[in-house]
Amino acid sequence: MNEFSQIPRALWWEDHRLFLLDQTRLPSEEIILEIQSPAQLIAAIQRLAVRGAPALGIAGAYGVLLAAAGWQHSQASPDWDAFESEVQQLREARPTAVNLRWAIDRVIRIARESRPSSEEQAYQSLEKEAISIHEDDQQRCQKIGEYGMGLLGESATVITHCNAGALATGGIGTALGVIYSAAMHGKQVRVYADETRPLLQGARLTTWELQRAHIPVTIMTDGMSASLMHQQHIDCVIVGADRIANNGDTANKIGTYQLAIAAKAHQVPFYVAAPTSTVDQSLPGGDDIPIEMRQGDEVISWGKIKTAPAGVGVYSPAFDVTPASYISAIITDTGIAYPPFNFRKFLGED
Amino acid sequence: MNEFSQIPRALWWEDHRLFLLDQTRLPSEEIILEIQSPAQLIAAIQRLAVRGAPALGIAGAYGVLLAAAGWQHSQASPDWDAFESEVQQLREARPTAVNLRWAIDRVIRIARESRPSSEEQAYQSLEKEAISIHEDDQQRCQKIGEYGMGLLGESATVITHCNAGALATGGIGTALGVIYSAAMHGKQVRVYADETRPLLQGARLTTWELQRAHIPVTIMTDGMSASLMHQQHIDCVIVGADRIANNGDTANKIGTYQLAIAAKAHQVPFYVAAPTSTVDQSLPGGDDIPIEMRQGDEVISWGKIKTAPAGVGVYSPAFDVTPASYISAIITDTGIAYPPFNFRKFLGED
Repeated sequence: MNEFSQIPRALWWEDHRLFLLDQTRLPSEEIILEIQSPAQLIAAIQRLAVRGAPALGIAGAYGVLLAAAGWQHSQASPDWDAFESEVQQLREARPTAVNLRWAIDRVIRIARESRPSSEEQAYQSLEKEAISIHEDDQQRCQKIGEYGMGLLGESATVITHCNAGALATGGIGTALGVIYSAAMHGKQVRVYADETRPLLQGARLTTWELQRAHIPVTIMTDGMSASLMHQQHIDCVIVGADRIANNGDTANKIGTYQLAIAAKAHQVPFYVAAPTSTVDQSLPGGDDIPIEMRQGDEVISWGKIKTAPAGVGVYSPAFDVTPASYISAIITDTGIAYPPFNFRKFLGED
Repeated sequence: MNEFSQIPRALWWEDHRLFLLDQTRLPSEEIILEIQSPAQLIAAIQRLAVRGAPALGIAGAYGVLLAAAGWQHSQASPDWDAFESEVQQLREARPTAVNLRWAIDRVIRIARESRPSSEEQAYQSLEKEAISIHEDDQQRCQKIGEYGMGLLGESATVITHCNAGALATGGIGTALGVIYSAAMHGKQVRVYADETRPLLQGARLTTWELQRAHIPVTIMTDGMSASLMHQQHIDCVIVGADRIANNGDTANKIGTYQLAIAAKAHQVPFYVAAPTSTVDQSLPGGDDIPIEMRQGDEVISWGKIKTAPAGVGVYSPAFDVTPASYISAIITDTGIAYPPFNFRKFLGED
């Protein structure tokens, strides 16, 4: 791989319209959805047509514009309080990834602070900020890739979990951004991808992305990582993050914690790659991160086929929390943080 | 639960005919197969219509009778060398579980040692020994259950992986045998079952068995165990075994090793339940256990639906090896072995 042209886009904004690549249909079909209202966006987010913490942030920012569609050509004065309560449901569409509410709050705050005299001006201000969040995420992915690739040798075998790629962000991805950047710079990277049950983002999305970019990828079930680490040399694990507490504890797709424990048992470095916007400074530790529980049907059904008897109980958290003590480094857009984690300088506060 | 009447049978021998419950069709359909030849049995074993190390041993023993079907009413003298080469393929139908070849070798050796003068006598001798292996396994399961239940308190929450139940044995199961015995004796046992990708024996078989026996069971994906152990108190993990090396290293369904690592990280006792026939004294350690690699299609297909793009590599070992250092105890039919493991007294050699 020597160029990024094969890297897909999860979502884009064009002529004041929001488009998503429907990730529930990959890899068998590439369906583009036009999202026309906040309600449609909430539905798309909840059924995971768009997912991944950074991509959810961008989707939320554009979702604010969908809520403000009526403002485009209006000279009335914006009623910000009414508007904020209108986007409240979108803000809460999924609870774990901090980026969704972070981005929504940010576009509104900045537009509001610009004190637009009309709804039209307010819309322009919101749109400018939403596009800036998207472009900013693109650049953050590039930076994460550039910092992170230094952790990989000239030839590296990497395990990843879920999809922390272009499909999860507005750019080249976080965990996969590191891999793309390394490959761009001539490093030989091989990837083992956990399939990531129940919704198979690893099998469906990570393989699809990496294949397009001509990066060798092997799929395995989530229970195979420890066996693989015992059987052959693995250079590191790299995963994304949905929310990082102030002490470095990291919420990510369910299964990440178990993978981190297996990595530690085999002395395999375990890296988290995420933009600094994923750090939630209000939370001292991971036990404070709210974990979304998903419908049991995602575990015990396959399309219309039931894979377990009716009436069985299902435990299905969407995420788990990997304690900071299992994390070798957190690769951010402003540098690589090592334990003990202190994000102040990475957040520009030192 | 106060009786064993609800516990299913994986296979049975009736009027010189072998019947299997087709486990690939559970839980949606209960289909009984009559197996009429060693070739049919090999196919059934390889597609996992019958599985589980002890059940494979019993199936192999009855498979010897299918190979000897022509001997039933013949007064000719048995050609044992030709016969042994005829069952060689059956012996090798699956490589990891030691019980298959152990049982086949045993029925032939004992029948041969009885020096039958005719094929008819040889058949009778083989049949007697095959039935005895089956009854013996039933009793071993009972004993495992009785020894093992002492490890559980009056109320216990247990994680299990794959299916080490009645469906995997000729009796009440190994890991689930412990749970059935505890429930029979009035203990309150709740089970969390890993779904066990790729073939979902946990979701399809363990839940089905436990529900029939009215034992509360909750299903989860294989990557959720560590999260569960962090979230709530788990009393222990109990799994079965496909082969145990002389030092206690244990081959079992893929994902077991990762579960054992997670258990150790949470100080949750990790128990293996298996008959002594699963111990392979010829192997000093687990690295010598041959691990069957399965077809990648089992990982990346769901019926006719492909869940990953064409051309992706797949890593799919059927089993992994849990080092003895992760095992708190091995529950056998002759007692509970604790580390450092020395099976001589459990094998009646001390």
